Amino acid sequence: MVLTSTTTTTMKAIIQRVNRATVTVGEEQISSIGRGLCVLLGISVEDTQRDADYIVRKILNLRLFEDDNGRAWSKSVMDREFEVLCVSQFTLQCILKGNKPDFHSAMPAELAQPFYNSILENMRSTYKPELIKDGAFGAHMQVQIQNDGPVTIELSSPAGPTDPKQLSKQEKQQQRKEKTRSKGPSESSREKSAMRSRQDHNASSGAEGDVSSEREP
Amino acid sequence: MVLTSTTTTTMKAIIQRVNRATVTVGEEQISSIGRGLCVLLGISVEDTQRDADYIVRKILNLRLFEDDNGRAWSKSVMDREFEVLCVSQFTLQCILKGNKPDFHSAMPAELAQPFYNSILENMRSTYKPELIKDGAFGAHMQVQIQNDGPVTIELSSPAGPTDPKQLSKQEKQQQRKEKTRSKGPSESSREKSAMRSRQDHNASSGAEGDVSSEREP
Repeated sequence: MVLTSTTTTTMKAIIQRVNRATVTVGEEQISSIGRGLCVLLGISVEDTQRDADYIVRKILNLRLFEDDNGRAWSKSVMDREFEVLCVSQFTLQCILKGNKPDFHSAMPAELAQPFYNSILENMRSTYKPELIKDGAFGAHMQVQIQNDGPVTIELSSPAGPTDPKQLSKQEKQQQRKEKTRSKGPSESSREKSAMRSRQDHNASSGAEGDVSSEREP
Repeated sequence: MVLTSTTTTTMKAIIQRVNRATVTVGEEQISSIGRGLCVLLGISVEDTQRDADYIVRKILNLRLFEDDNGRAWSKSVMDREFEVLCVSQFTLQCILKGNKPDFHSAMPAELAQPFYNSILENMRSTYKPELIKDGAFGAHMQVQIQNDGPVTIELSSPAGPTDPKQLSKQEKQQQRKEKTRSKGPSESSREKSAMRSRQDHNASSGAEGDVSSEREP
């Protein structure tokens, strides 16, 4: 039996860059964002706070947006003050048994729901609470995603020791680097200003052009 | 530097089960499907025909739909005669360098485009040509995805020998099994009837209910 590479049990996120995304349950639209990221989040039975912290950090800091000059891959969702719609998606924890999906590596709903809520809270406290939107955990939703580009990134939390004290040397270096980078001249106010109002950069979006031409910088 | 698990260079597909999906370039809607699968496809610089064959086989045979009795995860897109919208998505071949995405493991566009077209042709000849829709390779698109559930599966072609003669014993067994299964009583006509007209099963979709409750069969 062929098992695909989705057999590793790490937290998984599918991040789609959107111009708009909404969640509808039945006839009711329960959530909506404009420009930003639509995140489908799959929690595995083995995930811990460390996986959650990694995924939250990456979602908020990944440079998936252009800057004011139209330079691609230079600004994060926080840099641009865009929104995040995060929807729980256990099917990302899928192991294929032939052509039948098996979801036993997904964290059971009764454990996943409080964990998922804590991840949302983590995002809200790191960024701005009002810019983090949610789905309806466990409900049958229609998630309308206007993928802009399209730009889609799949993210997995690093496999490895689950004890934060056992972070690898590489990861510690990376965390220091991110901390340093956020203090650099071009982004010195990024973290501190997360709670302050900033200028809306939406106007530059039209300058983005053909995504495919941007892949070879 | 932390490299995520997206560093392996295999073909990647993000499969979203949809009630509707469209592709717009500028003001023009160039493609549209109803119920079916929206596939975002990322081709790596190392991919071969074998990766393509695996991904096409899985997209068309994965059991992501309910049957007439509302039993989840029992029918494929072909079983239900639904549509497939396949859009090229090089950003899935992403290696994170800190928070900056790097796409050098994506197959360059001049090679990826004919390969991608051959994958579409493969899907069309395996299923029904008129039920396989496309985006606009390399264009800046808005891909509108109405993810139903949501149900999202990430798929990677198996890493391993690229020579088809070197298929592992496991994979050969799997292929035999799939061949046998398709001759089973419940699906005996699946492949042979792919070119014939079949009854529309859309009417049963309302019976699907809460996706989350289906994960523990």
